[in-house]
Formats: sequence, structure tokens, C-alpha cells
Amino acid sequence: MSDNTNPEVNGADMNGAESLVRTLIAGGVDVCFTNPGTSEMHFVAALDKVPGMRCVLGLFEGVVTGAADGYYRMLGKPASTLLHLAPGLANGLANLHNAKKADSGVVNIVGEHATYHIQYDAPLTADIEGTAAPMSHWVKTSPTSQTIAADGALAIEAATQTPGQIATLILPADTAWGPADAVVEATAPPALPKASDAAVKAAAEMLRTSETATLLMGGGALRHRSLELAGKIAAKTGCGILTEGANARLERGAGRVQVERIPYVVELALDVMKKAGNLVLVASREPVAFFAYPDKPSLLVDPDSTSTQLVKTEEDIEAALEALAVELDCLDLEPAGVAQPYRPPLPTGEITKEAIAAVLGAMLPEGAIVVDESVTTGREFFPVTAGAPPHDWINNRGGSIGYGLPVAVGAAIACPDRKVIALEGDGSCMYTVQSLWTMARENLDVTVMVFANGTYNILRGELTNVGVQNPGPRAVDMLSIDRPNLDWVALSKGMGVDAVRVTDAEELVNAFDAGLHSDGPYLIEVAM
Amino acid sequence: MSDNTNPEVNGADMNGAESLVRTLIAGGVDVCFTNPGTSEMHFVAALDKVPGMRCVLGLFEGVVTGAADGYYRMLGKPASTLLHLAPGLANGLANLHNAKKADSGVVNIVGEHATYHIQYDAPLTADIEGTAAPMSHWVKTSPTSQTIAADGALAIEAATQTPGQIATLILPADTAWGPADAVVEATAPPALPKASDAAVKAAAEMLRTSETATLLMGGGALRHRSLELAGKIAAKTGCGILTEGANARLERGAGRVQVERIPYVVELALDVMKKAGNLVLVASREPVAFFAYPDKPSLLVDPDSTSTQLVKTEEDIEAALEALAVELDCLDLEPAGVAQPYRPPLPTGEITKEAIAAVLGAMLPEGAIVVDESVTTGREFFPVTAGAPPHDWINNRGGSIGYGLPVAVGAAIACPDRKVIALEGDGSCMYTVQSLWTMARENLDVTVMVFANGTYNILRGELTNVGVQNPGPRAVDMLSIDRPNLDWVALSKGMGVDAVRVTDAEELVNAFDAGLHSDGPYLIEVAM
Repeated sequence: MSDNTNPEVNGADMNGAESLVRTLIAGGVDVCFTNPGTSEMHFVAALDKVPGMRCVLGLFEGVVTGAADGYYRMLGKPASTLLHLAPGLANGLANLHNAKKADSGVVNIVGEHATYHIQYDAPLTADIEGTAAPMSHWVKTSPTSQTIAADGALAIEAATQTPGQIATLILPADTAWGPADAVVEATAPPALPKASDAAVKAAAEMLRTSETATLLMGGGALRHRSLELAGKIAAKTGCGILTEGANARLERGAGRVQVERIPYVVELALDVMKKAGNLVLVASREPVAFFAYPDKPSLLVDPDSTSTQLVKTEEDIEAALEALAVELDCLDLEPAGVAQPYRPPLPTGEITKEAIAAVLGAMLPEGAIVVDESVTTGREFFPVTAGAPPHDWINNRGGSIGYGLPVAVGAAIACPDRKVIALEGDGSCMYTVQSLWTMARENLDVTVMVFANGTYNILRGELTNVGVQNPGPRAVDMLSIDRPNLDWVALSKGMGVDAVRVTDAEELVNAFDAGLHSDGPYLIEVAM
Repeated sequence: MSDNTNPEVNGADMNGAESLVRTLIAGGVDVCFTNPGTSEMHFVAALDKVPGMRCVLGLFEGVVTGAADGYYRMLGKPASTLLHLAPGLANGLANLHNAKKADSGVVNIVGEHATYHIQYDAPLTADIEGTAAPMSHWVKTSPTSQTIAADGALAIEAATQTPGQIATLILPADTAWGPADAVVEATAPPALPKASDAAVKAAAEMLRTSETATLLMGGGALRHRSLELAGKIAAKTGCGILTEGANARLERGAGRVQVERIPYVVELALDVMKKAGNLVLVASREPVAFFAYPDKPSLLVDPDSTSTQLVKTEEDIEAALEALAVELDCLDLEPAGVAQPYRPPLPTGEITKEAIAAVLGAMLPEGAIVVDESVTTGREFFPVTAGAPPHDWINNRGGSIGYGLPVAVGAAIACPDRKVIALEGDGSCMYTVQSLWTMARENLDVTVMVFANGTYNILRGELTNVGVQNPGPRAVDMLSIDRPNLDWVALSKGMGVDAVRVTDAEELVNAFDAGLHSDGPYLIEVAM
């Protein structure tokens, strides 16, 4: 960090909140997803004094934190959030959990009572640091208005590490309103360390000598160039290319090297892993089951296989893959597994999972950002969309449902020239349904499909998976959300987003076409 | 606690989840507000094996925890919640915060991965105990299926203390599915300790000798009999009767002793407290400001006054007031300050805050439960409703908005024969808007009024209060929620709750009448 002594911004008139806003902007954090309260009013007021911060209001904090996650996934740089004391932070925690598991960097600014007020245990007093800790890598309460800029720079530095981190800076009200005179520039993150030569040689050796071997690609490795390098290595060695079932962002589509995902269902995953053979871990770790089930393993590696780590998440992934390709003398080979352009025929008739997949495959526009929270409906969307024009596919890394719409908000703010397509289960969509209002307010270019099957369908399968063979009516009732049915068109229009309900494939095609040709948000209720 | 050795329920066929459900029911915890996931499937399955547990599904965890709060406020006994790992708990934390500040007892059951699965850091793995701690009094992870019943009994014992406590029991999946053979009966809470004679005598002495004195009544003292005793003491000594601005539940209306509330605005509060003189604290503490503001005090007591504690929240409040009345020889006096029956005339014309207050005062039915989250709109509702038939008035003790609709759900489950009236600001109503669906599903007798002023209006005042005199357009934009306007009728109908929008007082009267005559939920969007 370094103090900025520019006299134009460092005057007696500046308060702590303004020094923080200027520090954030100086550190490249120029978007703030907000849901403020009284303790944040000086921060809000500072926004009119300081140009350059885009503020996006959410009507619930889960929208705010999830949007910051989506923003990072697309741009690889953190946004800030503005949250109101411990309960406001608490409402944002689930999507911070998801962001943390996706290695997204976020700078949370959480207002706190004035330092001298905390002892009185006013209604909103609670342990903010304790609330932040489970979902944050870095937590600090800034003690004075003179320290807030430096602490803001530290928060930026934490969030901009590789992988990204959740940094939570707590801003007492008197820290915000007291005098400040500094703007502090965050130090840029250091260059990424390289994977060791030994790791590269070990990976090469495994690929050369294994009967069957697979590159297991983690989040940071799922970019076009890294996948291309993986394809060259596959062309040379015949290895497979795999990734986990859910990823922060996968670059895919026609012309890109395809990567198979490990299935969610344990039996299917074990089968895939048995065929995978020995594993070269590329910014990944040995895969684990989403949940434990009686008499099923937690670790999904085949007992006869071994693993070697080529490169860690905090290292330079692309350089490691290049080094491996050099070591294997395949840098100039054509990559194997490149997806050929392919558009499936448009479906007709009943709306099935296959029909929805075909609509996506046939119509996905180039550059689309698909935010996938389709849960059970979407498990077969991948193969038929592999040949669509290049696009990004985003999944939930943390497993807490309600991530999809907020991440779509953040992705749309990050990439205003790209079409965002949010695929939602009806159950998951309700958790952070307030996101629709922010989409309307900011006229975000998001088309939402809600798969309205009227159930927490995944849980019906999970009842069986955990050993409940014949669930009774009360258990089934707890998994059913069709009494009453949700009217997604009404909900969406109630928040200002135009919407339509479709009941056959032709209507779905027409509605998706309307969404793709809209400049703003559009919701399609897909009756299942 | 004591083991139940009834052979009918203690068989080899019982698993940990079933032993927990049976333990909860045996301990009087026979309502469960749920939002389950995979790790809770055995608990869900057990509901079909064990009769007697009413399960109420919410589509978001804040609905679930707030409903448990409302249930306790009405019945003084805990409900349970069923939540899905750390993120599910996190989504419920804000309303657990509100419940904690309201001294409500709640038994949270939080599913966790199987104990042996946690080490693999699966997507949903996070620190549940750490997440629970800031908003819980009692937290425990039960290690085995044989211990879960005993731990469940401990959780019930914690929640049923006076005042109520938030107990969070973490249930690993293998603890749920492993074998169990016990149901454990929770020990009933001990009799409440009495206030000391010295405390009673000191209070009497203060009331006899002070020029001006006031009984400051805390949450547990706001029941009919305690207020009647306070009225007798006032009749004898001329003291005032005050309470905090927000209370867990206040019994009021015609025939009950009136109690003035300390205003939210600091200047007004200081004025009231100056007039209050010396304070007798009745299950209360010296009042504090909701927020700190530059150059305003945090503690709202008059510097010339002194305080004495008659009775603490954990003691027998009614007995202490009786002892004080005996000491002052006024037990047989008619209480002062009894509200006389009064119905204001029905308003006509424009919808103003006064018109809404008049509608409430004129039409509140006997036994109504008013859940007040009207924020700025409702500050003047109190005087004109004081003479309505006896009813209960519920406020947010914790200050985290989004408490109102969930608490209304819980109150309606607790008191199916009473009309619940939820008064909501449009900003606050959005946080846990999913509550409407649960109202429809359970056909709860709740009439919701949403005051649609299109703004976080309270924050406009707070900008000024914290010293921001001329907020700029970007600050004002962060407090405005009218771009786009929320269509509450659409939102409500989208979740299965019939609704109407009213734009003048006559329409409001007709709509409120329709709500009062409905057996199920009904929403009125009040255009402001």
C-alpha cells in the first residue's frame, strides 16, 4: 500500500467514508452492490462526492453478495458490497459461501454502530466479526476514520489474491463520519508463482507411463487457452480431460476443447473415475461426493488410481500446462477433443428436459453467459450445447441454492454487451427472487428460464439415496412446492420484469427468441 | 433429562432422526418450521413414523426462523426449525437475531454432513457452529446417533429458559441415520426466582420519595396482569408507565392499562425521559438509542435521574409487581391509566398515516394480533388504537427488517382462532416476501397491509440525522425503490394470496373489511 498525498483529494473536508470510497476506486473496485441502512449513510452520501463508483441496489442482501460473485467470475476482479450490520451481512452469507467456494474475490463493507455505541447493546448490536468469519478469508474492524483507507487497501489486497478471497471490512459509524486525510493505494498482487519443474516432470511421467490417465481441470484451468493446451496433451498422450460437476466458469462451445464433467450421482461418478485412471491434478484436487450416503464412499477416486499435482490454484496454471506440453513435445499439435459447430434441430411438442436442452443448443447466441441453477432439470443440458457458438457456463460451487439470479445480475453488470441466460429451478429461484427487481431497475440483459416442476425434485431422489425407500405423505409434502403453485409470470411482472408462461416446445422457442431479442430482462416460466 | 424406556418407541428400528423427533415432541416442541435439504432427509422421513409434529414449509429460511419467533411470542414455548447446513442456517440468522433480541426460545435443528464426510470439504461444508454462535445462546453438534436424543433434550432445556434462548443443535447425517434406542425427556425449567425484598423496598422508596418517577416496563412485564399492577401503583404514587419503542408483545386495548412508548427519534426520546424522572426498572434496563448519531447521546436516561431495578427478566415479574403493590398498600386500588373503549370515525378521502391509524382504531377486531413492521408509516398508529378491543401488538426487537411477515406466520400457527394483521413497509416486506406462500399453503388467517411509498423512507430521515444535510442524487437513488415500482398485488397473487390495491380511504376500509372477513390470507397494497 502507499499513501496518496494528492492535495486535491486529501483535504480537511474528507471523512472516513469518503476516504474509503476513494481508496476502493483507486484500487480498481468501482462497482458497489448495496443494501444500506442508517450505519452506512455516510458511505452512501460519499457516493455523490466521489465520481466513478457504480452503485447497484438490491432489495435483499443475498442479491448483493451473489452479484459480487457473478461480477468476479466474469472479470476476475472484485466488486464491493455495502451491508447493514451483522443481520445484513447474515442475509448475504449464503451467497458469500458460494462465492468463497468459487474462489471469487469480494470486498464487503459492513456498517457497524459507532465504536462508543456498541457497549449499549442496541437492537442491531451483534458480533459482526463472528458472523463474517465462517464465510470470509479476511475480516477486520477499522478502529478510526484515519485508518479506514489503509484497511480498505488491505481488504482489496486480500480480495485480489489468486485465488480470490472474501474480505470483510467493518466500518463503525464514527469511523465513517470522522475526519480522514488519506487515500491509500492497494498494492497489486504479486506475479503468480510457477509450478515446480518436478511437478511438471512427474505429470509428464504419469501421462507417458499410465495405461489410462486423465487431466482433472479445476476452476482456473477452464479457460480457452488452458483447455487448448490440455487438448494438445490429450492428442499426444491419449489422456482424458475431466472437471468437477460444478465450476465457477467454463469457457466452452464450438472451437473449444470439450471437458467432461464428473456426474453428481455417486454411482455414475465412480464409473467415470474408474475409466479416468490415474489423475493429473490441474488446479484441482481429488473429487469428493457432494453429500455422504450410507455405504457409499466420500472420495470419488478409483482405489486403483494414483494422482499427481501439476499445478495448484494459487500458481500460474496456463504456464504449467505450457511447460507440460513442452515436456511432452506437443505444443504444436492440434488439440484433441475440439467441439465442432453443431446446432440440434428445434424441438416440437411436449416440453421435456431433452426439448429444453435442444432449444439451448439450437439458439444459444455467441458470447452467451449461462448461469445454471437448473438442478435436476438441467443435468443433460451439456452434451447438446457443446457445439453452440463459444459461450461461458457458470455453476454453483458452494451448493447453497439461490445463487443463480444474483450471479446473473453480477455477470450482466460485468459484461453489458453479452447475453446472460439464467436457468433456474422453481425451488432455487425463490430464495433470492428479489434479484428480478434489480434486473428491471438496471435493465440488465438477462433471460431467465424457470423450470416449474412444483417440487424440490432433487430431494425426492435424495430421500432414496440416503436409504428412505418409501417416503410417507408428510415427507413428500415437505418436498412439494405446488400447494399453491407459484405464478412466475405474476411474480416477475410484480418486480418489473416482462414474463411469459410456455407449455409446449414451440412456445418455448418463441419465448426464448423474444428473450434473446430483448435488451432487458425477460422471464420464461417453463411448465414442466 | 430422563431416559424414556417405553419399549414401544425404543426399538432397534429407530434411527437418530426418529429419536430426535420423538424427543422434541415429548418435550412439547410439536411444531417444526422447515426448509430441508439432503442432509435432513432422515429427519423428514421420521415425520411419517412419528405422529404429533406439525410441519410448516417455508421457501426461504428467514421465513422459517421468523415464524418460530412469532410462535414463541404468542405461546411462550419454542417451536423447532429444520435448516440445511451452514448456508441454510445463515439465511435464517437475521430473524434468529430478531428472535434473540425478543427473548424468544427456538430449537434449531441444522443438518450437517456425515461426520466422516466433513474432512473432504464438499461444496456445502462450512463451519456451522461458528455460523450459529453469534445468534445462538446454546450450540452443540451431536456426535453420534446414540447421543442425539439427549442433546435434543438439552436444546429444549436451553430454549425453555426464562427468558427464552436460541438453541442450535447440529445433526450430522450419520447421527440421523445411525441406530438409536432412547427418547429423552427434557427437564422442565425451574420455578422463576423471586425479586429480592431489598429490590422491592428500594423501588417502593423511590416511588414514595421521588418528585417524578416512572415504571419502565420490559418485555415480560407487558402482559395484562402486570400492567394492571403497574396501574395500581400509578394510582397510588402518581408515577408514569413507560416501555421501550419496540416490544416482543404488548397486551393492550380497551380495559387494559396503557403504556407509553419511548420514541425512536432521539430528541423526542430525551424529552420523554426528562419528564419520566427517576426510573423503576421492571424487567428492563436503561433505554438506549437505536443508532448513534454525531453529537447525540447513546444512553437515553436523563442525567438528573436515577434508576433502581425492581425485577430482572429472568425473575418472576408479576410476583415482584404484586409485592411492590403490597408494599405500597395499593393492591386493591383501581388501576390508573386504563384505556376506555374508543372507536375513531372511519376516514374518508386521501390515504394518510392518520387515515390508516383511524382504520385500524375503528376496525381492529377483538383478539387481533398486530405484527407491526410499518416503520415510518406507523409511528402514529398507537394513540388512536388504544381504545380498540383487547389485542396484542408485536414489534421488531432486533431491528433487522424482514421480521414482520414471518412472525405473522408463526403467530397465526400459534393462535389459529385469532386474526393476525401484519403492517409492512414496502422496503421491509421484500426481505422475506416468500412468507406469503406459506400463508397461502397453510391458509393462515393473516391480513397484510403493505404501505407502498416506494422508498426506504426511514433512511431519508437518517441521512439528515447522521449529518448529511443535502444528499445528492446518487445517495437518494440508493434509498428509492420506485424504479420500477413493486406491484404488490401481482407479487401476492403470484404466491397464492388474494390481494387488492387501494388508493383512497374508502377503498382501504372496504379492503380491510374484506380481509377481516376472510378466513385465509389477504394482502392490501396501500398506495401512499
